[in-house]
Amino acid sequence: MLATVIHAARDIRVEEVPDPVLSTGGDAVVRVVAACVCGSDLWPYRGITPTHAPHRIGHEFVGVVEAIGDDVQRIAVGDFVIAPFYVCDNTCINCRNGVSTSCLHGGWWGSDDRLGAFADGGQGERVRVPLADGTLVSVPAPVSDAQVPGLLSLSDVMGTGHHAAVSAGVQAGESVAVVGDGAVGLCAIIAARRFGATTIIAMSRHPERQQLARLFGATHIVAERGDVGITAVQEITFGIGADRVLECVGTKESMDQAIRSTRPGGMVGYVGAPNGGPELPVRPLFNRNVGVNGGIAPVRGYIEELLPDVLAGVIEPGRVFDLELPLAQAAEAYAAMDDRRAVKVLLRP
Amino acid sequence: MLATVIHAARDIRVEEVPDPVLSTGGDAVVRVVAACVCGSDLWPYRGITPTHAPHRIGHEFVGVVEAIGDDVQRIAVGDFVIAPFYVCDNTCINCRNGVSTSCLHGGWWGSDDRLGAFADGGQGERVRVPLADGTLVSVPAPVSDAQVPGLLSLSDVMGTGHHAAVSAGVQAGESVAVVGDGAVGLCAIIAARRFGATTIIAMSRHPERQQLARLFGATHIVAERGDVGITAVQEITFGIGADRVLECVGTKESMDQAIRSTRPGGMVGYVGAPNGGPELPVRPLFNRNVGVNGGIAPVRGYIEELLPDVLAGVIEPGRVFDLELPLAQAAEAYAAMDDRRAVKVLLRP
Repeated sequence: MLATVIHAARDIRVEEVPDPVLSTGGDAVVRVVAACVCGSDLWPYRGITPTHAPHRIGHEFVGVVEAIGDDVQRIAVGDFVIAPFYVCDNTCINCRNGVSTSCLHGGWWGSDDRLGAFADGGQGERVRVPLADGTLVSVPAPVSDAQVPGLLSLSDVMGTGHHAAVSAGVQAGESVAVVGDGAVGLCAIIAARRFGATTIIAMSRHPERQQLARLFGATHIVAERGDVGITAVQEITFGIGADRVLECVGTKESMDQAIRSTRPGGMVGYVGAPNGGPELPVRPLFNRNVGVNGGIAPVRGYIEELLPDVLAGVIEPGRVFDLELPLAQAAEAYAAMDDRRAVKVLLRP
Repeated sequence: MLATVIHAARDIRVEEVPDPVLSTGGDAVVRVVAACVCGSDLWPYRGITPTHAPHRIGHEFVGVVEAIGDDVQRIAVGDFVIAPFYVCDNTCINCRNGVSTSCLHGGWWGSDDRLGAFADGGQGERVRVPLADGTLVSVPAPVSDAQVPGLLSLSDVMGTGHHAAVSAGVQAGESVAVVGDGAVGLCAIIAARRFGATTIIAMSRHPERQQLARLFGATHIVAERGDVGITAVQEITFGIGADRVLECVGTKESMDQAIRSTRPGGMVGYVGAPNGGPELPVRPLFNRNVGVNGGIAPVRGYIEELLPDVLAGVIEPGRVFDLELPLAQAAEAYAAMDDRRAVKVLLRP
């Protein structure tokens, strides 16, 4: 089959790779209907995370189950399924605590599972899915082509934006600022509105993304960054800063922006993978009682909660996909996102 | 009158200073019945915070109102009052948000208020209290001598331990580990029990403090630190770590201990003033979805909530005072706490 392989920075190829084979009893093979490129895929693409040897890449996909292992019970051949961006059993104590990204038996796409069998990357024609009963969620209705982008967003970005809002504790009537206008930041706006926030400030410098932010529920746009941007947020929020700030980038600068845009006693919900590991400055947090909560989003647990709203069109996270390409053009998909010509690219095998 | 002045590291003197005088209309003069030494007073005492010039010290006191300014309405002469460790108006937006330590008009004992009049330190015979209506809480019943330590604890340590538990979001049935067995850590145990935590782990190496921790509600004692201590906490908590960890020290080591003792998806509530400003390591937080919340405790807002339980003897935070000295022996009070001969020293003018 064909799948995407990263060979080095800016060297993405779609190559012939071995077909997935059932091997552990609890696994499934899924024919990919749609996959996509994640903002975090750009770290190795840009060479910020080194690529020491060619390896499969991609961790967001939806598709149709083609085969299941003997032990699989919740998933059936023919199901249209959503895969979160990681593998989990959905039964261990961490999964039950709502932190399936810390599953005691979990793993990651594009690497061996805990039983030593390979779990394919998401950007390919097929994927072997370990722990299929825990990992996959079947969509309980026929899926139209137009629904695919929205369902695919539940694989990562919509659940991740939701996690930022959950982690920050967004409540009805509150003010929320969102740092980052990528797909996750835009989905965080959807999540903030869904929780009833009445003031939603999108920090964005790009006209098209500002437009989408407004469509998703942003009540204010702040294009400035740094001290000027913080002052602009304060002017909208009684001079003190936003109740909740959703950090959806992961750089030192964006986290600094988020912390300083939060009111005393407020909370930063952060989901941007902190590439390079910026440390959090404790004094500005301590002195103003600003909390920081979040992390790698346990989206598996959010799929069932968000799915009805996506199917009903109450929320439209699928709109973050503004470019669709065949899998064969994966390299162009990466380039378009790297150049910010596209918010998020959907790939069809 | 007499009051405590710090001249340099390990040089605490009780000296004659000017009597306080009403000067702003909203102020009061309080005759101090009891004051105490705070763990944070030990930073300048030990020279970790430099003392550039002699200045008044002490920020925890209870007493009787001797005089009030023309604008004071909620406080009357003769009231027995509890002062939080800072000044606040209790009406600004930050106070209403529960963060009175960020009061827009607030200030600190031992320094000029925002109108330029001096607010005395707490370790003295009398204190001029700015914004008396906002800052002080009157006790609604006659106060016996035996009740004084418990009421004095509401000035800082009991409210601060409570804030750790509030910030961490402690709920009934949860597991809580407390890092630090000083007065604040011990009060955090009281707070965790008060919120219904069923597993309460005191991390303490001192037999007398372990005993007090048990009395306050600790169900387990972990004397070890570092990896061994973390493993011990995990063994008590299903192998994953405590739901909530209350950090009550403020060093890099104690915060590291707290973060690594927390289960995935759990929360650290921290109230130990981060002396020297250790940064928070973002990767161990992000990867495991461990949040950090807390800061300088807005105890003013907690006094009314905790006061009935203190007056009724439901909680006994006054037990953290294990040494009582006359104000004249303030230097010995500091030395006793510095040597860890005393958990917390109560001073009587």
